[in-house]
Amino acid sequence: MVNQVQRGDGTLSSRSDSSAASASGGDSSKESSRCSTPVLDADRTDRLRYKMRRRMESGDHWFSLEFFPPRTASGAVNLISRFDRMGSGGPLFIDITWHPSGDPGSDKETSSMMIASTAVNYCGLESVLHLTCCNQSKDNISRHLSKAKHLGLKNIMALRGDPVGSDWEEEEEGFNYAVDLVKHIRSEFDDYFDICVAGYPTGHPEAHSYKEDLIYLKEKVAAGADFVITQLFFRAETFLKFEEDCRPSGSPCVCVQGYQSLRQLVKLSKLEVPEEITRVIEPIKDNDAAIRNYGIHQALEMCRVLLDSGRVPGLHFYTLNREVATMEVLRQLGMWQEDPRRPMPWAVSAHPKRKVEDVRPIFWGSRPKSYIYRTQDWDEFPNGRWGNSSSPAFGELNDYYLFYLKSKSVFEVFTCYIAAQPNRKGHKVMCLPWNDEPLAPETNMLKDELEKVNTRGVLTINSQPNINGKPSTDPIVGWGPPGGYVFQKAYLEFFTSSENVNALLKVLKKYEPRVNYHIVNVHGRNLTNAPDMQPNAVTWGIFPGREIVQPTVVDPVSFMFWKDEAFALWIEQWAKLYEDESPSRMIIKYIHDNYFLVNLVDNDFPLDSCLWQVIEDMFELLQTGLDTGDAPKGNNRIKCVFIVDEK
Amino acid sequence: MVNQVQRGDGTLSSRSDSSAASASGGDSSKESSRCSTPVLDADRTDRLRYKMRRRMESGDHWFSLEFFPPRTASGAVNLISRFDRMGSGGPLFIDITWHPSGDPGSDKETSSMMIASTAVNYCGLESVLHLTCCNQSKDNISRHLSKAKHLGLKNIMALRGDPVGSDWEEEEEGFNYAVDLVKHIRSEFDDYFDICVAGYPTGHPEAHSYKEDLIYLKEKVAAGADFVITQLFFRAETFLKFEEDCRPSGSPCVCVQGYQSLRQLVKLSKLEVPEEITRVIEPIKDNDAAIRNYGIHQALEMCRVLLDSGRVPGLHFYTLNREVATMEVLRQLGMWQEDPRRPMPWAVSAHPKRKVEDVRPIFWGSRPKSYIYRTQDWDEFPNGRWGNSSSPAFGELNDYYLFYLKSKSVFEVFTCYIAAQPNRKGHKVMCLPWNDEPLAPETNMLKDELEKVNTRGVLTINSQPNINGKPSTDPIVGWGPPGGYVFQKAYLEFFTSSENVNALLKVLKKYEPRVNYHIVNVHGRNLTNAPDMQPNAVTWGIFPGREIVQPTVVDPVSFMFWKDEAFALWIEQWAKLYEDESPSRMIIKYIHDNYFLVNLVDNDFPLDSCLWQVIEDMFELLQTGLDTGDAPKGNNRIKCVFIVDEK
Repeated sequence: MVNQVQRGDGTLSSRSDSSAASASGGDSSKESSRCSTPVLDADRTDRLRYKMRRRMESGDHWFSLEFFPPRTASGAVNLISRFDRMGSGGPLFIDITWHPSGDPGSDKETSSMMIASTAVNYCGLESVLHLTCCNQSKDNISRHLSKAKHLGLKNIMALRGDPVGSDWEEEEEGFNYAVDLVKHIRSEFDDYFDICVAGYPTGHPEAHSYKEDLIYLKEKVAAGADFVITQLFFRAETFLKFEEDCRPSGSPCVCVQGYQSLRQLVKLSKLEVPEEITRVIEPIKDNDAAIRNYGIHQALEMCRVLLDSGRVPGLHFYTLNREVATMEVLRQLGMWQEDPRRPMPWAVSAHPKRKVEDVRPIFWGSRPKSYIYRTQDWDEFPNGRWGNSSSPAFGELNDYYLFYLKSKSVFEVFTCYIAAQPNRKGHKVMCLPWNDEPLAPETNMLKDELEKVNTRGVLTINSQPNINGKPSTDPIVGWGPPGGYVFQKAYLEFFTSSENVNALLKVLKKYEPRVNYHIVNVHGRNLTNAPDMQPNAVTWGIFPGREIVQPTVVDPVSFMFWKDEAFALWIEQWAKLYEDESPSRMIIKYIHDNYFLVNLVDNDFPLDSCLWQVIEDMFELLQTGLDTGDAPKGNNRIKCVFIVDEK
Repeated sequence: MVNQVQRGDGTLSSRSDSSAASASGGDSSKESSRCSTPVLDADRTDRLRYKMRRRMESGDHWFSLEFFPPRTASGAVNLISRFDRMGSGGPLFIDITWHPSGDPGSDKETSSMMIASTAVNYCGLESVLHLTCCNQSKDNISRHLSKAKHLGLKNIMALRGDPVGSDWEEEEEGFNYAVDLVKHIRSEFDDYFDICVAGYPTGHPEAHSYKEDLIYLKEKVAAGADFVITQLFFRAETFLKFEEDCRPSGSPCVCVQGYQSLRQLVKLSKLEVPEEITRVIEPIKDNDAAIRNYGIHQALEMCRVLLDSGRVPGLHFYTLNREVATMEVLRQLGMWQEDPRRPMPWAVSAHPKRKVEDVRPIFWGSRPKSYIYRTQDWDEFPNGRWGNSSSPAFGELNDYYLFYLKSKSVFEVFTCYIAAQPNRKGHKVMCLPWNDEPLAPETNMLKDELEKVNTRGVLTINSQPNINGKPSTDPIVGWGPPGGYVFQKAYLEFFTSSENVNALLKVLKKYEPRVNYHIVNVHGRNLTNAPDMQPNAVTWGIFPGREIVQPTVVDPVSFMFWKDEAFALWIEQWAKLYEDESPSRMIIKYIHDNYFLVNLVDNDFPLDSCLWQVIEDMFELLQTGLDTGDAPKGNNRIKCVFIVDEK
């Protein structure tokens, strides 16, 4: 079992004063302190040390999770999905370890730097990047730190690291101890980073004594560290004694505990496993399930002792990149957030610049990581300049289950996705090029209707139901702090043939001004009834003591950029699965070249959505044209696009 | 009867092209053209010539009204109330005449300049300022124009004016004709002003011929005039012939007609009254009512001929600063807007800088002109810097009926205002220092509750009911374009004693976080549960194809400025009605020094307002304290503040 300590220090309280002042309510000063964006959640914008401080003050226990960087690209994909899953449980932060031999500061998708950046920017997790300084030049360290800052990382765990080779000697002017790194960070980057350092409840394996080690810890704190994480420990008493010994240094105590299947860890940490533990483990060492159960039991016991001591405001877990045992312990402790409250209807990025982001176009709703990637250089949200759209970001070919689909029909692929049903070959359609994830629960509310229109060639890629003032705590459509009300206008976005569009345009005349539409083909031919070029708010929330928050809009300007991406996905993500000149590829190319991308908003959110009726009317108009002998221009209105199964 | 012509010219159409382009919806350009504020009403932001153009294109007849500056300060107060009343009928613009002998460009409250500025800034009316150039130096004219521009005036009617003395001669380099003024405006102020010039359907009285006069008109248009207003005429044929004769100059024709009781006008305009009119008028010349009825009948007939001709998109009226006859004609023509649609919940200013204003603090809701005055130097709304609050703007002593009140009790004054009932002396309480106008219709919805709490010493000065999604066309609470939904949080603002506040604070704990409050005394002691210093939106609207509009907020920063004004009004507007050291004055001074100003917001807008229950609970708590033998700290909870009737 792995245990760690984390502590606030004297510096913390003096720093947090300035933050407290800026957030005080009763200030009668006449300086205008208006925010441009209503801050729904102080946790979203505060730095880590203040978040800790607030949780300590309110007696609200937290937990945090440690991960190591993956070895392969597919390992990275898995780890990032794990971030999303474990992030939903509500960790205060995660941390990513640093392994000098693994090129940890590089741009590789497996580097510590890139993994931490992804956690912050794309998963929206407060993250701490480990950094070791042993055998490193100052320039090198500064380069790593500058890069971390540039990527939006705000927290560093400053470590010495293990020297390479056994006969290590101090270098003059070099980084010999973690305290040198702390000093370097503070002198080069001032107060930008929150700095964490390591503590050793049983003393550092190389230290001469436990007492001497406490002096080193004090030095690191004096040099500017904000909090401490301890090496692992196996007994609650170990930590509680350490906490008591540290207290004279004047730091308020914070404790965090970790858990996992430990065998490698013990080797790495050079710790002795207490006899009462080896005694239990020895007889069951070949029974993984038994060991895990014992581990969970053991961790649970220790966590309870620590929490009950009243000296432990939070727990920190070594996950070893696994999730089951950690989640089990947290669930049994009642600390796992079973009903995660969304701060916004979309996943918020944790990049310092993006913390102020308060509105996004709805179009990337199902490709949030692509949206973040494409807007990463923006200084201002949502008004930045759109970057190059020629290479659609994220969703590499191998992320898509389409690979294994080989469905007979394009319409069927869409329908199977909506229905979450296997296609003819028994493969479940889990995502489409336009949707990174399976259908959201709120979209599920529309499932029957969506299925129906997809089978008829209205290929939906995005939709939301209308919502007229549901509580912000609603498990499906709620977001933001409690006590608020959320609203939505019904939205539907789909590809469809030009014949359908012709009928649709006629039908839409009847629905003016209730329904706003944008209809565009790959060449940019754009038909709309939107007034001027103004965005249409389609998701908004009303909260106690706040201005209105309107996080999702149908924005005519960004729609033209989304259009480029949405059409490109047919080719980039789908057609390329098939051979050049193959029938499947030609069919997809045909759709890409000739179909229109349509979005519809029903502005009358208090009434039942009329969008299904609009589609129904369109089909009816096409049908009537046929019945009256008025020959339709094509057979698209009843056609199914077939893809030949080539393998 | 007075008749005028107004015409668009070739220049107009080329200019409006650029406006049309900026408002086009189908633009596939990738330049971001996002607006910071959703534009609810293009008419609100467009310049006059484009508004005319749009009305011409849609075949929507307009009317406009001409006024002359008043002679006295009280005449100015009357005229400004008339602007508010006649403005509600929906004129496209009003114009203010220029009388060189009356110091028309000065800062006097009766000057043409100040009247036009008031109409634009405080009444929100699109206004045209007349300007005559005869016998004026270029510097002088430029000064007038600079001042007009500074005040937010955008439209000038460029006139020569009547020369002083009978033997006028052309000056070299001077302003001899209106065309010289047009050229001067265009050369000095480029395209800033919309310029109107005069046309003479029967020829200028000093011109050699009707034909020569048409040439002068052409010159004025060529020099940069945007439209033409004719001198008055008595017969529809006169105008229709003139319109035909002008057409060859290439201008699309716009006609506007005027009406009023004419006697002075005929003298001024040196026109001959047609015989068929004098024939009718002569026998009834001593019967004012008969003449007025005939005038209305006559004007109505002519307007109908002009409108039916299809060559007249609008009508212009000389009001002679009266309203009955003009309104009667417009009503009978069906052009008077009986149900004025509010573009925003508060009266929008027509100052070019303020056209972008989209949010105001609720506190000045009943003193809108004071708010405009105090924020007149702001470059940005609502984030400007507050000016000096020591002299509360607007609401001169003599504007208030308090003068005649001499009520026995402060509480009674408030109660009588709410009830719109006469006080003991039979005087109706029409306004309070904090309320420029009688109770708004929506506040009337709360009348019973307000009456009840005012008699008990909760002296309400502002309130609004909660509204949960009423149509934007609702006659009482609606605003903005049709097809939208409007919302409000319940709001209540009042003065009350510190004893009441003590009880209130205890009660409010039960209503967390549903109710937000700010409680402040004259010394700035500020009690609040508002998160940070963020504004709380209390009025918002959802419209087709728009972002959310949130025009009214409870803003903690501006509340501290409103507090200064609200407390000062006790002294400035009320106490000063009584002698120094008089009991009445001392009582009001006591309230000023000891009472608190309280505002409450019920955030749960979909539920019935709980604010009355909050007040009820407060009274109950005070009562309970008494019943249990817990002696109350003062007797304020049942006290009535008496004012001695001193006259």
